[in-house]
Amino acid sequence: MRPKVNKHYLGIDFGGTNFKFGVVDSEFNLKEFKIMSLGKLKDPRVSIVFIKDLVSDLSKKYKLMSIGFGLPGPVDFETGHIHYLVNLKNWRNIGWKKLMEQELKIPVFLDNDVNAATLAEYYLGSGRGCLNMMMVALGTGVGGGLILGGKIYRGASNVTAEIGHIPLSIKGPKCNCKGIACLESYIGNQNLLNYAYRILHKHPESVLSAVKKKKLIISLEDITDAAKAGDKFAIDFWNDVAEKLGQALVGVVNILNIEKIVIGGGVSAAGQFLFKPLRKFVRVRAMDIQAKNVKIVKAKFQNKAGIIGSALIAKYALEKRSF
Amino acid sequence: MRPKVNKHYLGIDFGGTNFKFGVVDSEFNLKEFKIMSLGKLKDPRVSIVFIKDLVSDLSKKYKLMSIGFGLPGPVDFETGHIHYLVNLKNWRNIGWKKLMEQELKIPVFLDNDVNAATLAEYYLGSGRGCLNMMMVALGTGVGGGLILGGKIYRGASNVTAEIGHIPLSIKGPKCNCKGIACLESYIGNQNLLNYAYRILHKHPESVLSAVKKKKLIISLEDITDAAKAGDKFAIDFWNDVAEKLGQALVGVVNILNIEKIVIGGGVSAAGQFLFKPLRKFVRVRAMDIQAKNVKIVKAKFQNKAGIIGSALIAKYALEKRSF
Repeated sequence: MRPKVNKHYLGIDFGGTNFKFGVVDSEFNLKEFKIMSLGKLKDPRVSIVFIKDLVSDLSKKYKLMSIGFGLPGPVDFETGHIHYLVNLKNWRNIGWKKLMEQELKIPVFLDNDVNAATLAEYYLGSGRGCLNMMMVALGTGVGGGLILGGKIYRGASNVTAEIGHIPLSIKGPKCNCKGIACLESYIGNQNLLNYAYRILHKHPESVLSAVKKKKLIISLEDITDAAKAGDKFAIDFWNDVAEKLGQALVGVVNILNIEKIVIGGGVSAAGQFLFKPLRKFVRVRAMDIQAKNVKIVKAKFQNKAGIIGSALIAKYALEKRSF
Repeated sequence: MRPKVNKHYLGIDFGGTNFKFGVVDSEFNLKEFKIMSLGKLKDPRVSIVFIKDLVSDLSKKYKLMSIGFGLPGPVDFETGHIHYLVNLKNWRNIGWKKLMEQELKIPVFLDNDVNAATLAEYYLGSGRGCLNMMMVALGTGVGGGLILGGKIYRGASNVTAEIGHIPLSIKGPKCNCKGIACLESYIGNQNLLNYAYRILHKHPESVLSAVKKKKLIISLEDITDAAKAGDKFAIDFWNDVAEKLGQALVGVVNILNIEKIVIGGGVSAAGQFLFKPLRKFVRVRAMDIQAKNVKIVKAKFQNKAGIIGSALIAKYALEKRSF
């Protein structure tokens, strides 16, 4: 350990439920990583005090050059302003960069959490070696990030790549976003589990029916385990998820002619049960040239993508690198 | 008239059925415009001779600085190579730029025809004043072009913005592109008319039933005329088209957060019967920020967009302007 000699960068992934932070060196090796429940940090005032203490502690061990935040909502990367954070009602209209820099005396940068994860995968993970890439984050929500021409694509007002809100048909369930039949309203984690419960009672032969009887609930991991054991219900379930995600991705691929789709988040743990039918669906249904030129791969960093990407933003923004 | 004094540019829009050309001055005022049936020009050898004569004729009157071609298929803007042209089987693997420059002794540039139309609308037409725009061309096919960050977006392999091939549901008609339930298989001109015929016999009260009895066929113009006369069948028909196009555009808007959608092609002649329900659909169903930031407008140049855009490419490429 050579404390305080080498340059380090702090990445903070401020999620809807968890607070994660990590310290990386100049080569983005993770030197420190912690994940904790958000708890009282939901209050911005508590957060400020906590982060001040955290940075003070970490600074004893590391030479922190800058800090990057990945935040769950529309934030302005240029000005460092938080418009609002999803599911965190007290975070609204805060000049976060300015405030943090006053408190911490270290340069602070911030971006959307999915953009942070996208940058991590693009520069350091499964997205390397292309110019046009979409990141898909499968969780409670279904989010996305876009790299076009080697740069994060930010659109007219910093809200892009909302793959979870591609409508899959003209009629269907109403989505939180006010849309109808959005991808997320089918394959968001909770919606997936609700769907599994709805159809499971028709399949007493599935091992999952026994699991449910025993544990009262089932998880997406249970469904993947059942698929591994050859359970037809579970395999069909993942095929169905692949079809829905595939339909949205066919549209994206035909429009954007991207080279890589990097899929992360809890649901991606279904592995080949999701990826194999998904790749086949896109290969069969997307237009020839686009289908031939796109690879669908699993994210490398998974739950660390946010902090690594936030640390990357901290480093690159400090070096005035455009990304 | 001040022949041969001012700089002029020739744009050639080489469609699947028509050959159009136009001469513009440095301010893109159209000095000459002609549209003719493709006929024998479907043969590349005949085309070469014809274009040579055409350029020789026009050169007597205009100082032609460069020539731009808009072509219906995948072509390589950088190298000037034609991969193939849709519905024109003899046009395959031709080094068109090199060949034309040898024959004409004038700099030649080429691009996809929809990119040409997109550039015309973006720099000179309804797309002015934004950085991110989608062009939608409604015709036999449903094509598109994308301007992102003020530049044509070309993707990994020069095939982008295929809005006609966004799938609208998991099941549906098989599309020429091999996809299922693509937008084009619903609202391509011929598919629209087939749909009108299929449902019209259930609506003897519509004025269109009388039109069909009299003329044996109906056209999309007839349907617009009927809508203008207050015919409920015709109004519902355009509402239905707006819903289908709207569903695809909601996905595009949620992903790309573009500021303008410029709609051209024959179907856009339906005017408010299409645009009013379309704008409402996108406003209601797209995500708030994206919906607030996008305008849906009618193309300015319509059937001249291709030649004006081709001439613009000729001028800008000659001036080494990036676009």
